[in-house]
Amino acid sequence: MSLICTGTIGIDTVYAPTGHAERVLGGSCTYFCAAASFFTPVRLVAAVGDDFPPAFRDVLSSFKGVDLAGLETRQGSRTFAWGGKYAANMNNRETLFTDLGVLAEAPPRVPAAFADSKFVFLANSHPSVQLDLLGQIKGKPLAVADTMDLWINTAKAELLVLLRKVDGVVLNYDEAELLTGKSNSVSAARHILEMGPRFVVVKKGEHGALLAHRDGIAALPAFPAENVIDPTGAGDSFAGGMMGWIAGSNGGNPGSFDTIRRSLVAGTVVASFNIESFSLERLKTLTRPELDARIKQYADMVRV
Amino acid sequence: MSLICTGTIGIDTVYAPTGHAERVLGGSCTYFCAAASFFTPVRLVAAVGDDFPPAFRDVLSSFKGVDLAGLETRQGSRTFAWGGKYAANMNNRETLFTDLGVLAEAPPRVPAAFADSKFVFLANSHPSVQLDLLGQIKGKPLAVADTMDLWINTAKAELLVLLRKVDGVVLNYDEAELLTGKSNSVSAARHILEMGPRFVVVKKGEHGALLAHRDGIAALPAFPAENVIDPTGAGDSFAGGMMGWIAGSNGGNPGSFDTIRRSLVAGTVVASFNIESFSLERLKTLTRPELDARIKQYADMVRV
Repeated sequence: MSLICTGTIGIDTVYAPTGHAERVLGGSCTYFCAAASFFTPVRLVAAVGDDFPPAFRDVLSSFKGVDLAGLETRQGSRTFAWGGKYAANMNNRETLFTDLGVLAEAPPRVPAAFADSKFVFLANSHPSVQLDLLGQIKGKPLAVADTMDLWINTAKAELLVLLRKVDGVVLNYDEAELLTGKSNSVSAARHILEMGPRFVVVKKGEHGALLAHRDGIAALPAFPAENVIDPTGAGDSFAGGMMGWIAGSNGGNPGSFDTIRRSLVAGTVVASFNIESFSLERLKTLTRPELDARIKQYADMVRV
Repeated sequence: MSLICTGTIGIDTVYAPTGHAERVLGGSCTYFCAAASFFTPVRLVAAVGDDFPPAFRDVLSSFKGVDLAGLETRQGSRTFAWGGKYAANMNNRETLFTDLGVLAEAPPRVPAAFADSKFVFLANSHPSVQLDLLGQIKGKPLAVADTMDLWINTAKAELLVLLRKVDGVVLNYDEAELLTGKSNSVSAARHILEMGPRFVVVKKGEHGALLAHRDGIAALPAFPAENVIDPTGAGDSFAGGMMGWIAGSNGGNPGSFDTIRRSLVAGTVVASFNIESFSLERLKTLTRPELDARIKQYADMVRV
């Protein structure tokens, strides 16, 4: 069923102990849509400037089922650009520069043809922008939002409004701690449930993910990856695999504990491929049989 | 089949954000044996001083199947004592004091009646002591050793000899990193396999555990625990549950990938009870039905 993602397309410059990549395709919406496309068609809503390379648009188009009707190219504007550097252990990174470009302008609009989307992912953005985008969707979609420390610190009131309007939230461990003041991941996730959503996914990077749902708790390790080239986009490709799997599943209750829990496997495995390269290099060549084979391998690894 | 644990019995003083406990029963051997006893009889080898309270001995005896014939009480010596303080997130701790007592003397001996043990756990100690204790066991037991950063830094040559003599090693994430110079847990664990053992269990505390075995890789999350009162002994009770489960399993190949992987579930769940109290308070009241119920609950939580 119809899945939409609103968020950022960016031009990334990444320095890692494994090498570096200059001005490559990145952004939350990019990673999300590429990952989701392995499971379901996905509608992209984001804005770029007139400097956005046609070759990058071609990369996005190369993922089967990514609908670019919501990709706004703004004349006279610049595409969001970000530079970051990873520490030796790949777990910490520092931002080297941020060029907001179109992100400092009005957010993109949801095309009328996308307003019937049944599954909505609001990638990280100011919670007011996320609320506005969600408001443009008709009916009662299954809506999931990402957020970040910046908004927890600077726009908490708006974030709390958002949390009452979405079905689920996906955030990092330290962000869950910051939002709740609780240093135990289960306690923090349960506390966020009280803020409104039906489920919370706490992402712990190489340590996996925790799901707190009104109907239960689940925990998953990350895929034990050795070939980590660039962690950029790990969280967004995780969310893309997760939401793509939910939207692509036929039947069942899409917001149920069991569905969400099973979707985390898809997210975990797609993300494990994503970090094997800079930008989308690995996802560009990834095939569904490769994906299914690793999903099976992962299921064997975590079998109890 | 017969399981033996060599290690430390201590008197612990613990300060945690949840409260504190002064001069309570602790030590690697204590936590290991209590945890293992839920699955199999276990033989304890450790030394204490003449200050060791009879009440603590009674606590050890209260765990069904813990054989104290290898508990040496030394006149004129003091029991090892340790004081530590946990940080707010319970993940980091500082040592407040260490009173070596009997640990500065000759290590305990393995009683002749214990020399036929088929499963050996060498709790953390100087690797030369571990080698000496292992040498007192006849035949070819399944031997597993724990270690710590102190020995990696100060007795690496002896540790490398030990690693060639044991079947398995259990160590913390940062210790695996220190031992190998590799910051990726899978790479570090694989590297340790090349040092000799058939399997390596990397303990990641609240993030679970990774198993690298010559025949495969497995990953498990920790039990999502909210009620964390005192993490002291988590690693030793994990190892106790693991080795107890292996020794208590009838049939099968005790050193096989599948057996070790399944044993980690027992370790994970016993450890999750242990951290619900200071000292052995929770394990003292734990029943096998409670344990089995949580093992089932955990299996449901991590089901893929």
